[in-house]
Amino acid sequence: MLMVPTFDADPRVKLVAAAAPRAESRDAFERDYGGTGYESVEALCADPSVEAVYIATPHQMHVDHVLAAAKAGKHILVEKPLAISMEDADIMVNAVREAGVHLIVGPSHSFDLPVDIAARRIASGEFGTLRMIQALNYTDFLYRPRRPEELRTEEGGGVLFSQAIHQIDVVRRLAGGMADKIVAMTGAWDPKRPTEGAFTALMTFETGCIANLTYSGYAHFDSDIWMNNVGELGQTKTPDAYGGARRALADLSPEDEARLKTTRTFGSGKTIEAEHNEHFGPVIAMCDRADLRLTPDGIEVFGDTERSFIEAPFGPAPRKTVLDALVGAVREDSSPVQSGEWGRASLEVCHAILTSAASGQTVALRHQCKAQHQEFPR
Amino acid sequence: MLMVPTFDADPRVKLVAAAAPRAESRDAFERDYGGTGYESVEALCADPSVEAVYIATPHQMHVDHVLAAAKAGKHILVEKPLAISMEDADIMVNAVREAGVHLIVGPSHSFDLPVDIAARRIASGEFGTLRMIQALNYTDFLYRPRRPEELRTEEGGGVLFSQAIHQIDVVRRLAGGMADKIVAMTGAWDPKRPTEGAFTALMTFETGCIANLTYSGYAHFDSDIWMNNVGELGQTKTPDAYGGARRALADLSPEDEARLKTTRTFGSGKTIEAEHNEHFGPVIAMCDRADLRLTPDGIEVFGDTERSFIEAPFGPAPRKTVLDALVGAVREDSSPVQSGEWGRASLEVCHAILTSAASGQTVALRHQCKAQHQEFPR
Repeated sequence: MLMVPTFDADPRVKLVAAAAPRAESRDAFERDYGGTGYESVEALCADPSVEAVYIATPHQMHVDHVLAAAKAGKHILVEKPLAISMEDADIMVNAVREAGVHLIVGPSHSFDLPVDIAARRIASGEFGTLRMIQALNYTDFLYRPRRPEELRTEEGGGVLFSQAIHQIDVVRRLAGGMADKIVAMTGAWDPKRPTEGAFTALMTFETGCIANLTYSGYAHFDSDIWMNNVGELGQTKTPDAYGGARRALADLSPEDEARLKTTRTFGSGKTIEAEHNEHFGPVIAMCDRADLRLTPDGIEVFGDTERSFIEAPFGPAPRKTVLDALVGAVREDSSPVQSGEWGRASLEVCHAILTSAASGQTVALRHQCKAQHQEFPR
Repeated sequence: MLMVPTFDADPRVKLVAAAAPRAESRDAFERDYGGTGYESVEALCADPSVEAVYIATPHQMHVDHVLAAAKAGKHILVEKPLAISMEDADIMVNAVREAGVHLIVGPSHSFDLPVDIAARRIASGEFGTLRMIQALNYTDFLYRPRRPEELRTEEGGGVLFSQAIHQIDVVRRLAGGMADKIVAMTGAWDPKRPTEGAFTALMTFETGCIANLTYSGYAHFDSDIWMNNVGELGQTKTPDAYGGARRALADLSPEDEARLKTTRTFGSGKTIEAEHNEHFGPVIAMCDRADLRLTPDGIEVFGDTERSFIEAPFGPAPRKTVLDALVGAVREDSSPVQSGEWGRASLEVCHAILTSAASGQTVALRHQCKAQHQEFPR
C-alpha cells in the first residue's frame, strides 16, 4: 500500500502484472490497473511484459521470490530487510549476480531525499571529515498490528529486522557504508510482545567515524516532535493521535490482530497523505566544519559561525528516489547504492546487534560494502 | 559568578567570608557583602563565623582546599568534578569522613529540579521498571575561553571532566547510582584544541537499566533547540546568538584567551538571566509504563495512552536545590545524594570513558554508590 502513490505518480512506471494470494487484492489490481493478477510469483515472473518485479512479501519469503524473479531474468526491487538469515542473503546476492539482473533493496529510509543529499554532500568533502553520527527514533512500532511471526525474533520479528535495518541503512549511507565494529544492548521488555522492542548501539567505520544508534518501539516518547511533528511517512501528526496504536490494539485478540495485519494489503488499505519527505527519526551527522541535522524538508547545516538550510523538495509522491534507482538499473544498467550486497551488509549489522547484546562483546563486521553514488536519471 | 544569584536569593545563606587571589574579587566581595576577603583558603577556613565553605577553584586545586576546610571542621560544597584523579577523590572522601563534616559535590545538573523530581518519581515505582536512559547534549563548550590546562586532558581538561561529569551525574541520579559497566568512544577532532571534544557511551546499571550518553562540545548543532530554546543556565536563547563562541574566540591569542577566562570571576563577570530551571540537554528515561522527557520547566510524561506534565517550578533563583542540600547537611546532619562518594563514583565513570575509548574494551566500574534520597528542608 505504501508504494501505490509512488507508482501512480511516476510516468516511468506501468504496473502490468501483480501476484497475491488474496483474490480481493488481485481483483482490485486488475480493476485499477488493467493488468494481470496472478496467483503465483512464478507465473507473474513468466509474463514477458514484466521488466522488473517489486517484492513486498513477508521477510521470510523474500528468498524464494527473489530467486524466481532472477531466474526469469527480471530486475528486482525487494523490500527491506533483504532476508532474515545471512545464508538467504548470500543465496540472493549470488542468484542475481549469476542472472545478470539488478537487485535493489528498498524502499528503505536511506532513499529519503534528505539522506541522499546529505550523503552526497558529506562525500564531496565540503564539510570536512565526518566524525560522528547520532541517530535515534522513538516510535509505536511494537504496538502496530502484527502477524505472530513478527513478534518472534528468530523469524525476523521485533525491531531489529524491520526497524534497525532502516537506521543502519541511513547511518551506513551517510558514512559511506564500510562499518567496522559494533557493540550494542537490546531490550525485550513487554512480556506480551516478547521480542526486541528497543536497542542502543555504538558502531565504528573504517574511516574512523563513530556512530550512535538508538531505537525504541515501545510507543511512549515520540521523537517525531523533534522532526517538526512530521511522521515517518511524511504525514503531519496531531497531538490527539497520541497513544493511538496501544488504544487500537487494546481490545483485539491475537487472531483479530493477525487478521487485521494480513488484510491490510492492496485493495483494502488506505493511503497516507504525505506532505514532506519520509524520515526515520532525528539524525545528526557531525563533520569538522559543520553538523548536519536531517529534517523531513531538508538538511539544517550548523556551520562554524552560521546556520543554513539545504532544501530537499518533496514530490510529486513519496519514494521517488526508489524509482530513480530502479529506472536507472533497468534502463541504464546503473548499479544502485542499495544493492543486494548493501542489503546484506545492513542485515549483518542487525545480527551483530543481537550477537553483541547477548554476549556483551564488541562484534567485528565482515560483509560490509561501500556506497557507490549512483547518478540517477531524474 | 553562577552561584551569586543563588546565594543572594536565599535567606538561609549569609556570605560572611571569601578567599580569592585577585584583590579585585576580594574588594568586590567586601563591598557587596560586608564580609571578610581572605588571600588564602586556610585563613578563610580559620574564620569562626564560617559554617560551610563553597569551593569553586580550578579542578586541580579541589583536593587542597577540601582538606583545608575539612581540617577546620567546616562543611563543604565543592564544584564538580570532585577531583581529576581517583587518588585525590579517595583522599577527600577519607578526609571528610574523618573530620565528620558533610561534603557535597555541586552544583551539578543532577541537582536540577526536573532531574530531582524525575529521580524520585522513578524510584517510587509509579512508572514501572526503568529500562533505558538516553542523554545527549550538543554545546559550544570547547570554544568558550579556556585556561591552557583546560585543553589538556591529563590536567582535567576537555569535555570529560567538566561536561561528561554532569551527564553521568544526571543519568546515575535517575537510575539510582549503581552503574556497572561502560563502553565508550571519544573524539579529539580539533588540532587547535587537542583534547576530547565529544564522546558517546553505553552504560549499564546493576538494576539492568541501560543508558546511552552522547556529548559534543564542538559548537555546531545546538541541542537546546530540543529543550524549548532554553540554554543550560535556564536562559532563553535567540537564533542570532548562533556561532557566538567561535566568533568571540576567533581573534584572541592564547594569552588573551587565558586572561579572559581568569578574570571572569567575582567582581567582573556578568550574571545570566535565568527564567527556567537549568538543564544538561535532552534526557529521555524509559520506564515500562511511561517515558519521561526532561524539559527546563518540568517533565513530560508519555504514558501508555496519554501525555501529561509534571511541573518543576523555577525560582526564586537557579540552583536552590543545591542550597537545600547544603542547609540539610549543615542544619540537620542530612547526607546529600551528591556526597563525596557520589562524586567519586561519577569521576570513575569519566575515567572509564577515557579508558574504554583508548582500549576499545568494556570497563567494569568498582566505586559506585547508591542515590540516597535526602528529604530536603525547603
